[in-house]
Amino acid sequence: MNNSPRTRLSPGQFLFGAAYYPEQDRAEDLRDDPDRLAAAGVNLVRMAEFAWDRLEPSPGEFDFSFFDEQIRRLGERGIRTMLCTPTAAPPVWLARRHPEILRVDADGRTQVHGSRQHASHCSPVFRAASRAITGAMAAHYAGNPDVVGWQTDNEFHCHFSEDYCNAAREGFREFLTQKYRDIAALNEAWGTAFWAQTYAAFAEVDLPYPNRPSQENPGQRLDYVRYLSHAVIEFQREQVVLLRAANPRWWITHNGIFPNIDYRAFNADLDFMGVDIYPLLAPVVEPGSTVPEAYSARMLARTQSLSPRFIVPELQSGGGAQGGFMTDTPEPGQMRLFAWHCVAHGALGTLHFRWRTCRFGAEEYWEGVLDHDNLPRRRYEEFCREGAEFKAQAHIFHDTRPCRDVGVLYDTGLMEFAHRPITLGLPSPGAVADTIFTTLWRAGYNVGYVHPLADLANYRLLFLGAGAVVIPEVAAALTAWVQRGGTLVILARSGRKDERGQVVTATPPGILAPLAGCEIEEYSRIHLPRLAGLPSTSFTWGGEECAEHLWREILRPRGGRVVAQWRGGRFEGLPAVVQHQVGAGTCFYIGTYPDERLVTQWIALLAPMAGIRPLLPELPEGVEVTLRREGDRRLLFILNHRGKPSSIRGVPEGTDLLTGRKPEHGALTLEPYGVVVLSY
Amino acid sequence: MNNSPRTRLSPGQFLFGAAYYPEQDRAEDLRDDPDRLAAAGVNLVRMAEFAWDRLEPSPGEFDFSFFDEQIRRLGERGIRTMLCTPTAAPPVWLARRHPEILRVDADGRTQVHGSRQHASHCSPVFRAASRAITGAMAAHYAGNPDVVGWQTDNEFHCHFSEDYCNAAREGFREFLTQKYRDIAALNEAWGTAFWAQTYAAFAEVDLPYPNRPSQENPGQRLDYVRYLSHAVIEFQREQVVLLRAANPRWWITHNGIFPNIDYRAFNADLDFMGVDIYPLLAPVVEPGSTVPEAYSARMLARTQSLSPRFIVPELQSGGGAQGGFMTDTPEPGQMRLFAWHCVAHGALGTLHFRWRTCRFGAEEYWEGVLDHDNLPRRRYEEFCREGAEFKAQAHIFHDTRPCRDVGVLYDTGLMEFAHRPITLGLPSPGAVADTIFTTLWRAGYNVGYVHPLADLANYRLLFLGAGAVVIPEVAAALTAWVQRGGTLVILARSGRKDERGQVVTATPPGILAPLAGCEIEEYSRIHLPRLAGLPSTSFTWGGEECAEHLWREILRPRGGRVVAQWRGGRFEGLPAVVQHQVGAGTCFYIGTYPDERLVTQWIALLAPMAGIRPLLPELPEGVEVTLRREGDRRLLFILNHRGKPSSIRGVPEGTDLLTGRKPEHGALTLEPYGVVVLSY
Amino acid sequence: MNNSPRTRLSPGQFLFGAAYYPEQDRAEDLRDDPDRLAAAGVNLVRMAEFAWDRLEPSPGEFDFSFFDEQIRRLGERGIRTMLCTPTAAPPVWLARRHPEILRVDADGRTQVHGSRQHASHCSPVFRAASRAITGAMAAHYAGNPDVVGWQTDNEFHCHFSEDYCNAAREGFREFLTQKYRDIAALNEAWGTAFWAQTYAAFAEVDLPYPNRPSQENPGQRLDYVRYLSHAVIEFQREQVVLLRAANPRWWITHNGIFPNIDYRAFNADLDFMGVDIYPLLAPVVEPGSTVPEAYSARMLARTQSLSPRFIVPELQSGGGAQGGFMTDTPEPGQMRLFAWHCVAHGALGTLHFRWRTCRFGAEEYWEGVLDHDNLPRRRYEEFCREGAEFKAQAHIFHDTRPCRDVGVLYDTGLMEFAHRPITLGLPSPGAVADTIFTTLWRAGYNVGYVHPLADLANYRLLFLGAGAVVIPEVAAALTAWVQRGGTLVILARSGRKDERGQVVTATPPGILAPLAGCEIEEYSRIHLPRLAGLPSTSFTWGGEECAEHLWREILRPRGGRVVAQWRGGRFEGLPAVVQHQVGAGTCFYIGTYPDERLVTQWIALLAPMAGIRPLLPELPEGVEVTLRREGDRRLLFILNHRGKPSSIRGVPEGTDLLTGRKPEHGALTLEPYGVVVLSY
Repeated sequence: MNNSPRTRLSPGQFLFGAAYYPEQDRAEDLRDDPDRLAAAGVNLVRMAEFAWDRLEPSPGEFDFSFFDEQIRRLGERGIRTMLCTPTAAPPVWLARRHPEILRVDADGRTQVHGSRQHASHCSPVFRAASRAITGAMAAHYAGNPDVVGWQTDNEFHCHFSEDYCNAAREGFREFLTQKYRDIAALNEAWGTAFWAQTYAAFAEVDLPYPNRPSQENPGQRLDYVRYLSHAVIEFQREQVVLLRAANPRWWITHNGIFPNIDYRAFNADLDFMGVDIYPLLAPVVEPGSTVPEAYSARMLARTQSLSPRFIVPELQSGGGAQGGFMTDTPEPGQMRLFAWHCVAHGALGTLHFRWRTCRFGAEEYWEGVLDHDNLPRRRYEEFCREGAEFKAQAHIFHDTRPCRDVGVLYDTGLMEFAHRPITLGLPSPGAVADTIFTTLWRAGYNVGYVHPLADLANYRLLFLGAGAVVIPEVAAALTAWVQRGGTLVILARSGRKDERGQVVTATPPGILAPLAGCEIEEYSRIHLPRLAGLPSTSFTWGGEECAEHLWREILRPRGGRVVAQWRGGRFEGLPAVVQHQVGAGTCFYIGTYPDERLVTQWIALLAPMAGIRPLLPELPEGVEVTLRREGDRRLLFILNHRGKPSSIRGVPEGTDLLTGRKPEHGALTLEPYGVVVLSY
Repeated sequence: MNNSPRTRLSPGQFLFGAAYYPEQDRAEDLRDDPDRLAAAGVNLVRMAEFAWDRLEPSPGEFDFSFFDEQIRRLGERGIRTMLCTPTAAPPVWLARRHPEILRVDADGRTQVHGSRQHASHCSPVFRAASRAITGAMAAHYAGNPDVVGWQTDNEFHCHFSEDYCNAAREGFREFLTQKYRDIAALNEAWGTAFWAQTYAAFAEVDLPYPNRPSQENPGQRLDYVRYLSHAVIEFQREQVVLLRAANPRWWITHNGIFPNIDYRAFNADLDFMGVDIYPLLAPVVEPGSTVPEAYSARMLARTQSLSPRFIVPELQSGGGAQGGFMTDTPEPGQMRLFAWHCVAHGALGTLHFRWRTCRFGAEEYWEGVLDHDNLPRRRYEEFCREGAEFKAQAHIFHDTRPCRDVGVLYDTGLMEFAHRPITLGLPSPGAVADTIFTTLWRAGYNVGYVHPLADLANYRLLFLGAGAVVIPEVAAALTAWVQRGGTLVILARSGRKDERGQVVTATPPGILAPLAGCEIEEYSRIHLPRLAGLPSTSFTWGGEECAEHLWREILRPRGGRVVAQWRGGRFEGLPAVVQHQVGAGTCFYIGTYPDERLVTQWIALLAPMAGIRPLLPELPEGVEVTLRREGDRRLLFILNHRGKPSSIRGVPEGTDLLTGRKPEHGALTLEPYGVVVLSY
Repeated sequence: MNNSPRTRLSPGQFLFGAAYYPEQDRAEDLRDDPDRLAAAGVNLVRMAEFAWDRLEPSPGEFDFSFFDEQIRRLGERGIRTMLCTPTAAPPVWLARRHPEILRVDADGRTQVHGSRQHASHCSPVFRAASRAITGAMAAHYAGNPDVVGWQTDNEFHCHFSEDYCNAAREGFREFLTQKYRDIAALNEAWGTAFWAQTYAAFAEVDLPYPNRPSQENPGQRLDYVRYLSHAVIEFQREQVVLLRAANPRWWITHNGIFPNIDYRAFNADLDFMGVDIYPLLAPVVEPGSTVPEAYSARMLARTQSLSPRFIVPELQSGGGAQGGFMTDTPEPGQMRLFAWHCVAHGALGTLHFRWRTCRFGAEEYWEGVLDHDNLPRRRYEEFCREGAEFKAQAHIFHDTRPCRDVGVLYDTGLMEFAHRPITLGLPSPGAVADTIFTTLWRAGYNVGYVHPLADLANYRLLFLGAGAVVIPEVAAALTAWVQRGGTLVILARSGRKDERGQVVTATPPGILAPLAGCEIEEYSRIHLPRLAGLPSTSFTWGGEECAEHLWREILRPRGGRVVAQWRGGRFEGLPAVVQHQVGAGTCFYIGTYPDERLVTQWIALLAPMAGIRPLLPELPEGVEVTLRREGDRRLLFILNHRGKPSSIRGVPEGTDLLTGRKPEHGALTLEPYGVVVLSY
């Protein structure tokens, strides 16, 4: 970003601020805002995200005066503004004049004005309205020096991603026509010979409706998911084109990340991605989740794999609440910890959500830096501390980047979408990747997600699968990387399906077989508890007894060498893990799904072979460690996510940026919610 | 009631009888009814509740002959009739001629003929039909001396309360127009600046649809709930006006109590409320409920707070069943116990549901006093015993009333409705009030629910909250009551919202702060289990270690004095409870939600201060005690809800009405399901 | 079947093969099929089940060439074909031209093309299309010697059985008009006097919608369920008539069994029933189910009670998967075990589902004998072994039949349908029958299901109920059977309802009272856990302490003699079981519902009285035993459903057909998944 022409913020400057909604407040509440923001070290606010009703109160009649005034007042205090296209919440007049813009769900229920995200990205009418407001805002603000960038819309697909309105139906047919040209190609790709579904024309094709009355066509579902992603990308692109045309120096971002979007394609239109980080929302988003920083670390690392540099347009500043839930409120120190947590994973800016808590509306208990009564309390003080720290340190960390040596191969568009139609009750490739990432991250490894077609040169160890769709380019890239010395672990069910979601005709792992050095002789879904009469099995590898998880594959070596065999049951002695030397590198194929215990067992064997080790040894529970570097300059971020002190050993010699202290004998003690940034 | 001109039943006479459905039986089954009913001491039956099809078999063609005959035959045996407006189940011709009367649910599904409660209270067409049948019945029976009162409709909102038909939509707009006059006022009240929802005209407003696609506007939901209550009140009022005009001596009641009705307003049109009591339905209505008498005691006490005198138009007489459930059948003695349970809470009449079990229809296993085969068995014998006892004793208890010294402040219209749109996963004010009531009732305190604007003079201890909306009149009334010597306990989150459901601009507890003597510095939602890294805390008050529950508030005294402090976590030592002397009284503010354990801890501290104590000491499990009084005359109702004998101590000197016995040395033993009414 | 003129397969020949879908495969995959099938001993394949799109690619244009070729190639290798009417999946042109054929669910959601079973059996347009394709296929194949039989459609009602399209509505009205003639009769049967539902004309009647807004009319629901069954029978009959007219030597079957079909009536149009057997699907179909062979044994025994001889058109050959589930894969030996399991229960043929796994579509992981890559592996080898064994042994077992001495009375049309509208949360008669069957089957009794109007002569012990509707013919048949010496056990709630689903006017057990020798004085639904204050009770019978289950009845002897009394609670000493001598036989009435423990207790008392005993004593867990006989020739099928050896004792003297071995001293050891067929 600091190399980008598209910002007027100085190189080395960390973007720091808050989401700001002056349109929701009384005039007297706004009075002290510029002073208070400036005092906290804020250099950026996000504005106008949900203000279409104010900007265009009646069709075609624009009124920018209110925001002009806010931008000016803030600008006078050195605070820049990132504007938003306000299209996540169109004004009521649009819905009333053009009810055809409303999204429809799979049950035929038309979405309504009164909430948000009720307009269809597929609707030509809504797209025209989106271009009109975007164009008007772009034109008006093109010359405003205080407006430095844009966020498109807000959290695309955060509530739901499906769309069954007529425009979606027509758009889907058009999408298919463009993709397949010939209906025979669609029939082939979707396998319509199964259950007599053959189409004679694209006009006969409809959207896929789940359970109407039974299992849908998986090819149809897969293309539908792709179409939904395509539609939102097209919708955003129309806005991006207008913004870039108005002022090419603006940066453009968006705040993700949510389902059914191929962010790799999506991000191609942006300068960098954004990700909204609410660690304490973990159990709401992922029921059963109990470690908030694990959830947010995954979000940050995923975003970083999509967009090497990124911002956090929304960062938790208090309890977050809607309808039937409310998260915990961050403890004293925890809000600042969250900000450093973002930086530790590579963020180039954090905006707290939100400046002031709204007293009404669906998020009236989503707490800002300031409370409902507009008084500055401990959260404001902590906000000021963040601002001061970033101002002091950003020049040191700003040009460093996360640089991982262990990668979990993952991509939404390629792997996750393909899992959707037929899950077999198995975790998706994304969930599998999360299990691997989380286990290694907790153990202190320098681990990230990585797209299989990204530059893999810096990695030493990569994990693929389970259940990954593999296209020839990926097989080739991985083979080349292994040949150059990499260690690749392929997990069960990988390579079984092609890009259409069909099972391949070759014996699995299909095009991965030459790399894996084995074939799959037989497989079975494993359930716990087991049905009466069916055995549970395990395999022993390097002294570790590894219990099968969810899936069992019997391998047959084809060039590789068996390093672990199944035990128990009728499969005693049959191959479970095959190791294959390929050029200077090694490939392991493991015939089951991973869980945390298995990954822990495997990494103990694999790390020495791959020549990697954790960033810190014996990491205490709740302590996170990440590395950012630029050339030889290395910054080790050590974060204590627990409300009690924690002692660390084996720390390299260096200096803590924040205190200037140097750990003695490699030991240091972190305060509750404490942060150390060790430069070495 | 006995002071009311609107009854021909004698003063001192307890209303005793059953719900009677002769239209569902064969002629031979009806033959012995008048004799059997009279022999049991019945003086009232309820009739014609679901007989619109019989009364108006085709549009405008009325036929009262069948019911005339039944009323006459019963009247000859001294049994009076309470008629019902039969509007809970309109005839099929109405639905077929006017499908626009049918209610529609939030998913757009039109309700159908074939069940009941499928017609919309908002529909002008249905209202006209309701007036027509009511007017015709009123005119026909105006001079019939055996018809003494009316029940409107049946259990308004017992199945579901929402309505999305076109008439509801139009009615809602009209309701809003009347309420706000200016659309700007609506925008202000609903906070439409949030998520760009501003309306330019009332005609743009729609009903609120939950999750279409996301959180609805909470102000819109609140007004919609109020509108639903308004519509049913208007619907009933049209019937009441016609009935009163036809015969001003008739009493008019209804059988509640169900969701989304502001019964305080609703009851203003009635002579007294009715409440249907099925104790053994407890686990069906409140899953997990295991103590039937706790459920029914809450229902009775809530009704008594709405309507100081009330009847029980339906009282369980056997197992109750619909579709997929069937309750237990009362054990021998338990049906009579239920009747005295109603009297203990102030009922002036009980009608068992129902006289004879129906052999068909949706309630074919809802057991009456008589079985399907029309034979009198043990339940009939018990029914006769009830009749004899009430006949003998009613003159003694009839003019006494429950008179409580501990009150739980509660009101549907004010508090419960406001909680609906945004719950944060917290129990509603009603559920909180239930927890407090149940804990104190189980411990033998003389406790009831009380409306905050009712006469509070007799109370010594009141509980408010948690989460209560407080309007200025309530704040003033409570302050005056405390100043005169009362002890008020305000629980967390009270005073945070105004009548529109918006968070107040003042620091909480807002207008309650002067009374509470404190402000809220900070708050957090507390979850169990806690997220990793977040502490659980508690406070010590008067030697009791009180564990926080659901919500934690850090107080700041403003005139009050800290009497308990938080322990553990980062909030060690900060105020948890503030006591504030106000005039002759005391106010306590407690910064958490109550559960049964906390209420038990608190009452141990508060009772001595407030000068109250339980009606009986050391009440055994399953024994209930209530007090009715008139002047110096006191009746202590002691009821054993368990199927085994129970011994009581500390009983005051007096005489058991039912046996003439006097407890010796303050001790008495209750039989299984036994009842003592001690006059002292 | 072997006595039927309707087959060209030889007498004594077991039907052995697979479901075959050549239309889903590439030409190169098909090449070796005839050879591989023939080598496995296959004599029959099922074809064209889901190929309407291929057979009639555009309206009225038929193309049989593809299947002609497949049939010919197989025929040349001696493999016959059973064709299917392909109506479970109509082509897209039918849905697009005639959207009125689409089924509609209770929520008004129209079903769509893209899955299967989306067309309405009630639709005259769809019926015409069904007749057209059936007629065309019948005419084309009438003279083809390789086509030997037909399966109608596929698994009627396997996904869902309800239908709310307009044709269903009109069909229902017509059905009711035919049934009742006079609307007064409908009002009487449905009890419309309850909740004012009286109809004046059939045209006023609608389909029953559950919970719109509350409990539906149970008589309306019962007739609707009957209508749904009627419609599918009529739909099938139209196909049967055309097939029989084209070639009277064809056999016709169908593959069940699924809800809301009265298979007794349904089967009257067929030569024999079919049942699809997937033992490892047990936990998917019956959540919580853990013993796969118990589930499949019930399916087989139920089918055998409907159709003394039957086939298994689909038998599990690998893991089975759709959408979110996948079953386990059979262990080595288990697939063959499943085939013998079918034979043990009387099957005259088994076709594995399916020959080759499909690589696409909704069942792309439903594994056939061959894998996706078309390679023969262990499942093919096992398939060959099955074929060889059946070829060698079929002449010995083919004319024997299961012949049971214990029967569980059951019928869908009579008992199960009547339970549907009002369940009271109790298990249905079918579930009750399953509990009794499973308990006795596990204990090694020679038990089956039996229709109450079937020939009962061979049975010694019968169970009826709980909750059974009993019509006079059934009461008479059971009375006659008991009088001739049978032992009948009647369980709680039997005889309470008539064929309309109304509770009878007589004291229960109504028309069964003379046989039972008692009446029901009182009853109660029993819940666990019990509400506070309500006791649990039990009765002692023959030394066994029997804990009440779900329901408690207090009996009053009327000719019978009390053999067990209730203990505990207020019902101490009242009758719980009455024994009644009737002619040469005995009837027991037991006043509670059965569970496995109770059935085990009861059979210990009843078996000696009824003169029955298990087929084998002390049957080990997981071992199943059944008997087939013809005259004096008896075959004992002993199957080990566990993956470890199992030792059996008390085996009669005889010879194992499969090995020629004779058990010594009545002992033998079964291999894992081993099968013994003992001829003696």
